[in-house]
Amino acid sequence: MSHDFLTDFHHVATFGATPNHGVDRQAATAEDKLSRDWFAQFTQDKGWELRVDAIGNMFALIEFTPGAPYILLGSHLDSQPLGGRFDGAYGVIAGLHAAKHIEARLRLENVSPRFNLGVVNWFNEEGGRFAPSIMGSSVFVGSMDQHEMLSVSDLEGINVAQALEAIGYLGNDLRPEVAGYAEIHIEQGRILERESVSIGAVDYSWHTQKLDVEVLGEQSHTGATAMADRHDALVAASKVILKVHEVVERFEKGNIVSSVGRMTLEPNSPIVVARRVSLVADLRAVDQPTVAEARRIMLEDIATIAKEHDIKINVNDFDIRDIQYYPESGLQLVEKVTANLGKSVRRIRTMAGHDSVAMNKIVPTVMMFIPSIDGVSHCEREFSTDEHMLDGLEVLAETGWQMIFGALAAETGQDEFLFDSAVQIS
Amino acid sequence: MSHDFLTDFHHVATFGATPNHGVDRQAATAEDKLSRDWFAQFTQDKGWELRVDAIGNMFALIEFTPGAPYILLGSHLDSQPLGGRFDGAYGVIAGLHAAKHIEARLRLENVSPRFNLGVVNWFNEEGGRFAPSIMGSSVFVGSMDQHEMLSVSDLEGINVAQALEAIGYLGNDLRPEVAGYAEIHIEQGRILERESVSIGAVDYSWHTQKLDVEVLGEQSHTGATAMADRHDALVAASKVILKVHEVVERFEKGNIVSSVGRMTLEPNSPIVVARRVSLVADLRAVDQPTVAEARRIMLEDIATIAKEHDIKINVNDFDIRDIQYYPESGLQLVEKVTANLGKSVRRIRTMAGHDSVAMNKIVPTVMMFIPSIDGVSHCEREFSTDEHMLDGLEVLAETGWQMIFGALAAETGQDEFLFDSAVQIS
Repeated sequence: MSHDFLTDFHHVATFGATPNHGVDRQAATAEDKLSRDWFAQFTQDKGWELRVDAIGNMFALIEFTPGAPYILLGSHLDSQPLGGRFDGAYGVIAGLHAAKHIEARLRLENVSPRFNLGVVNWFNEEGGRFAPSIMGSSVFVGSMDQHEMLSVSDLEGINVAQALEAIGYLGNDLRPEVAGYAEIHIEQGRILERESVSIGAVDYSWHTQKLDVEVLGEQSHTGATAMADRHDALVAASKVILKVHEVVERFEKGNIVSSVGRMTLEPNSPIVVARRVSLVADLRAVDQPTVAEARRIMLEDIATIAKEHDIKINVNDFDIRDIQYYPESGLQLVEKVTANLGKSVRRIRTMAGHDSVAMNKIVPTVMMFIPSIDGVSHCEREFSTDEHMLDGLEVLAETGWQMIFGALAAETGQDEFLFDSAVQIS
Repeated sequence: MSHDFLTDFHHVATFGATPNHGVDRQAATAEDKLSRDWFAQFTQDKGWELRVDAIGNMFALIEFTPGAPYILLGSHLDSQPLGGRFDGAYGVIAGLHAAKHIEARLRLENVSPRFNLGVVNWFNEEGGRFAPSIMGSSVFVGSMDQHEMLSVSDLEGINVAQALEAIGYLGNDLRPEVAGYAEIHIEQGRILERESVSIGAVDYSWHTQKLDVEVLGEQSHTGATAMADRHDALVAASKVILKVHEVVERFEKGNIVSSVGRMTLEPNSPIVVARRVSLVADLRAVDQPTVAEARRIMLEDIATIAKEHDIKINVNDFDIRDIQYYPESGLQLVEKVTANLGKSVRRIRTMAGHDSVAMNKIVPTVMMFIPSIDGVSHCEREFSTDEHMLDGLEVLAETGWQMIFGALAAETGQDEFLFDSAVQIS
């Protein structure tokens, strides 16, 4: 399992490879197509069934028990611009190799599991080109509207439907009925590395939200307009950015992060004072009240800035994601599996969003982390060792094995829930 | 002269018209082409000679005295994005109508002037799409390199040569030999309006320079990266913008302006901390020492910000334009002409750059202003009244008349200089 996995992992990292060992493989680009073609070829070579749904999610399906729902393993192959080669890709490739391993083991042991097994490559988890992020899995679970998401445009005016069509991945296959989901991912933090722990069993996700901030000044000449006569949208926006950055200082360290990552200016000319700046503030914290309080402070600060500059600032909340707890039964399963394999494990929260956060809304879901060196991610120097990846692969394969035999369904008694969710997502 | 001029002025304002009475007619766009086609048609209808040179400057030439050099009147028909309909266009259209008037008067009085007369529409004065600004006239006078300017690209990667070729205005006509230049423009300030003065005789231009600032942080995940582990290029850039804005407070009010109008982020994704921000700071003051001192303070502030954020900030000076004095003889000519026409006049400085600043380097140049309501420009609500425009047209026509009879050449004795410049620009 290990040699083939590493070969494949490092091969996929060549699709959209950047000079500093990262990848640039944004959703539905030519580079994303390369990784998708690879996923399709892998599926075909194994004789599995390939499905592509109407939002570009790809499923590699293995039927052991005719008509039974599927346990899915997976993550996403798209990346941020100049992103790392581990984020997402690790989970998909580990999923494929875990599935291959499980299929072989079933044949060897000659047993029939309760559920079938599939591997998924979710569309546009990153959201760098098309916002919001976690798009494919959210459409799959019904928390985002498919029609609306297909109409989302990138900065060039190309929408999701057009972009998927252009690379040949706007499918119309039936979505598989799902009974459970497991995902493995890099931590994107320093906790596992610092404590030398192999596996993180993710217990909950942070409460997150974004704010769309529109600063409306007045366009004027940078040379000929007196300073007092200006309503400079960029100066006001700069103050907003600093307030967004500083708000975390009011809270306990490590409980909240905030930032502005996207910003556009109009007209963006060297000799014209900006008339309009629009920016996205990203706010994430350990619980909802912390986010709400930070948001309240920011809105107060923004109102002060608007008054001071005699300009209008519009703020809209969007992409609000409440804190999500992963099921206790899944945590216990990961802890048991890891212990049996002789590896170390600890519970850990996720500050970043993941496809598993969406899936957790409809089926019993397991989320696992492996260590990240230096805790950096969404950048070229993102790194996890081969050893970390192989440890995770082993744990994922064993967890998937347990799940197709009903580990979570049995422990949690969620049969009825499973039925509901299957209806909802088909 | 007045009715036809107003008809033409308001007609040209329909090319690239915006909903709020402005125009969007950036250099070498389809909208710019409309105004150029109009200029060409006007020239042809009058039976004048049209020339288009290799940087897209357009000349409408009237030969009275075979072989003599030309006095040029003019400005530019391009605009800022969502700019006003007066900036530049007024000077070109007034130039054409002044020339028409002068031609008719010469026929009537049956006299032969010393110089010929031309009207010019300079390419890309605004620099919004292709930086630097004042491009066409600077290439004409030899202070910018033609080959280099033809290679300048816009944000879409289209260069000047390609853009001019695409609209049919990459010419190769011989540049006219020039003996003098006169330009009339809106003030873009409040002085004339406040003092109810009809004409400003521009005595000098401010010292200006730009700084290219590149802030190099590290890309990371907005959710999963601890605040302390970040090197956020946008936070540091926001501080730079505020320092650029605040530096003017150290100087006497009205002697200096500063701003940032252009800025780009990479990767500009809502959930990624920016790795690189590049911005342009624009610094303009009443004299060179003031600009130098402001620049020194800004560089100190920027160094402090870089240290505080543990990131790299590169700063490069560019587009430095020293203070330029227009010739005293031209100022006196405008004062005399205006007084003879029974209108009021005062001397005034220009904070903005103009094509006349470039032309002033090689030939005796006259620059005039008419009042701007509220002093705003580079925006849709830029405004001057019909009466202001007609007053200016009368003064321009009389000034041009005096100049073709050698008013400035005689007074300043610059015949030798004229010869040099003619060699330089042919």
